[in-house]
Amino acid sequence: MPMIDRNECAKRDCKDRLRHCRERFTLPEGIAYLDGNSLGPLPKSAPEAISKAVTSAWGEGLISSWNDAGWINLSADAGDMLAPLIGAKPGEVVFGDSTSVNLFKLAAGILGASEGRKKIITETTNFPTDGYILEGLIRLLGNHHELVRVEMEDVASAIDEDTALVVLTHVNYRTGAMYPLNKITAQCRALDIPLIWDFCHSAGAVPLDLEKDGVEYAIGCGYKYLNGGPGAPAFTYIRSNCQAAFEPALTGWFSHARPFAFETDYDPHQSIAKALVGTPPILSLVGLIEGLKTFEGVSIKSVREKSLALSDLFIELVNQELADQGFTIVTPSDHEVRGSQVSLVHEHGHAIMQYLIGQGFIGDYREPGILRFGLTPLYMRFTDVWDCIATLRDAMATGAWDKPEFHARKAVT
Amino acid sequence: MPMIDRNECAKRDCKDRLRHCRERFTLPEGIAYLDGNSLGPLPKSAPEAISKAVTSAWGEGLISSWNDAGWINLSADAGDMLAPLIGAKPGEVVFGDSTSVNLFKLAAGILGASEGRKKIITETTNFPTDGYILEGLIRLLGNHHELVRVEMEDVASAIDEDTALVVLTHVNYRTGAMYPLNKITAQCRALDIPLIWDFCHSAGAVPLDLEKDGVEYAIGCGYKYLNGGPGAPAFTYIRSNCQAAFEPALTGWFSHARPFAFETDYDPHQSIAKALVGTPPILSLVGLIEGLKTFEGVSIKSVREKSLALSDLFIELVNQELADQGFTIVTPSDHEVRGSQVSLVHEHGHAIMQYLIGQGFIGDYREPGILRFGLTPLYMRFTDVWDCIATLRDAMATGAWDKPEFHARKAVT
Repeated sequence: MPMIDRNECAKRDCKDRLRHCRERFTLPEGIAYLDGNSLGPLPKSAPEAISKAVTSAWGEGLISSWNDAGWINLSADAGDMLAPLIGAKPGEVVFGDSTSVNLFKLAAGILGASEGRKKIITETTNFPTDGYILEGLIRLLGNHHELVRVEMEDVASAIDEDTALVVLTHVNYRTGAMYPLNKITAQCRALDIPLIWDFCHSAGAVPLDLEKDGVEYAIGCGYKYLNGGPGAPAFTYIRSNCQAAFEPALTGWFSHARPFAFETDYDPHQSIAKALVGTPPILSLVGLIEGLKTFEGVSIKSVREKSLALSDLFIELVNQELADQGFTIVTPSDHEVRGSQVSLVHEHGHAIMQYLIGQGFIGDYREPGILRFGLTPLYMRFTDVWDCIATLRDAMATGAWDKPEFHARKAVT
Repeated sequence: MPMIDRNECAKRDCKDRLRHCRERFTLPEGIAYLDGNSLGPLPKSAPEAISKAVTSAWGEGLISSWNDAGWINLSADAGDMLAPLIGAKPGEVVFGDSTSVNLFKLAAGILGASEGRKKIITETTNFPTDGYILEGLIRLLGNHHELVRVEMEDVASAIDEDTALVVLTHVNYRTGAMYPLNKITAQCRALDIPLIWDFCHSAGAVPLDLEKDGVEYAIGCGYKYLNGGPGAPAFTYIRSNCQAAFEPALTGWFSHARPFAFETDYDPHQSIAKALVGTPPILSLVGLIEGLKTFEGVSIKSVREKSLALSDLFIELVNQELADQGFTIVTPSDHEVRGSQVSLVHEHGHAIMQYLIGQGFIGDYREPGILRFGLTPLYMRFTDVWDCIATLRDAMATGAWDKPEFHARKAVT
């Protein structure tokens, strides 16, 4: 195989069919952003949209903006914007609250109806908050359930007739490994065991077809691949034919059939609004809507094609340029089980990432020793990958990575 | 008593010691805003602060802004800003999630330790979402508790040794009646019964001294009298000496002692951070901080003095100008039990409020027949009260209130 050089990467940029999407973002000068799996960058349209929401809708419209500026519908509107990216139908997704709160909502609603089954199965390397939330819920419910953490390959065999709930993350936040969801989903449905998927590292990053794959419950993040802004509200998905039976536990007024009638008795809205609770944070929702717009006219299939092309390139260049430098690629080489990031492990991973950030290559670090590089097709270039790996190669050769004066970006205030 | 006229109101404006605070807000031309009890107006500093958070912190700083722009501390910073306004200590208040979610957090944490006591006492005219949330929690916990709704005057006698929790709202959202909190708080503490106060219509509106009055748990709204913006995060207060024993039920990673260590086991932070769950909505939190800044250098005592002067004037003018027009004042005349709004009941309340809004006097309407007027000392003028009542008087005399062409403001888009 011929060596890849920067020219070759530049050629790939020229042929990139998503090239025009980079214009949808405001990216700082002099950096390559490989951390969109943690916080997506600023959509170019966001400052004006948010400013308008602040000065016009809040400042001028005041309370009337709940109707006149459509604030009351933003949570549902954002859900319907996401739906086609994850293969959901309109009315199956809603944005509001954080991922953690949304997991609690779904798990509490499901366990409230679990009739004596005890096991809650999750996976050992899941994002910790998912486990924390489940532990907290189990305690709250009187310790009648047991949280069972198993390796991903053991999940299928762990599921049995005593399983009340399965909670799995589709793409692992550390390794970028993606689990084939349809097999376990089908198994759970066949046994009538509720399964909640965490799509924090999937939505906007990899193709999902919740309708076809029979997914019934899911949650996911608004501020990573969906570019919704820091702490943007997260989403909740409930399959349409599961909505009637779902009994919300967090029964706030925004989930009421008639919230503004101020009725004494609770009567849940017979829709995905069941997954709402209190008043949503409008300014953050307005930012989220602009994030979702960055996917306008873009198929998730084309996002996936470029994502794999970027991660293939990344992996090839690690092998080509960084051999014998102590890096291990922990992201699967098989496309079927790879998300939209590449993670490397190195014994000096923390210092090396600090060095890269200092040079303008913004990835991030997770213990133990993991350098994470998010690959985000809407704004990343193939030359960004080249430049990142070339910088890393030079730093490893010269030892510059170990010099604190080169570490970390200057603060932007 | 001499008649009050507009000149007299203008004189009171001249002598108003909080007059300068009006400059802290951007208020639309041609309106008097009497709905700050529902959504506070735009602080003048908010557009720039939010714009900076968007373009500089999010756009330029990207992921590093969690530290460099202090996002990670905003929830606690906002809590410490509120603390002096409600007589709390630093480290006792934190902002995040909605009021409804925050009530669930506190009630769930408390009931998890309630050891067999059954009754949850609340009050019949409480804001409905508080009751909904408690009903949902009771169902989730297996219907071992019973929600007992009693009239406010019967709360004290309803509290007994079988009471697991009392949840009361300090200022009623419809009538503006304020309940003397220290007596019931003392009763509950003497019996060791947890009591959660809902301060949605109190914080920033009436003096509170949680420290002195022995309040242990409270929640409240950020977007009403605190001017935090639409859907701004709400607050949770846990008295410092109750924090160690409080066991969170919504155990998200932001309540972990070391959230970024990504540990498998949950270990709650031994602080008010126990009341956090997931990633907070940063843009909305930035707006909230600007709302809290509108109280800078202002004592809640001076806010209260002007609030009572405004509501006294409002009530006097209703009696003077609107006699025999079918209005009933449902807000208490006694200062001790009056919040910071005046509510009138009229059989044509809805149409009359639509008319007032059409003329630029923005109050709001609640069933049955209630016209609500929020009195907010930081930006309201005594002449606003005069103009509102004079407009209402003329409309009642001419019958203009019943003409739909005069109803409601034009939409601001």
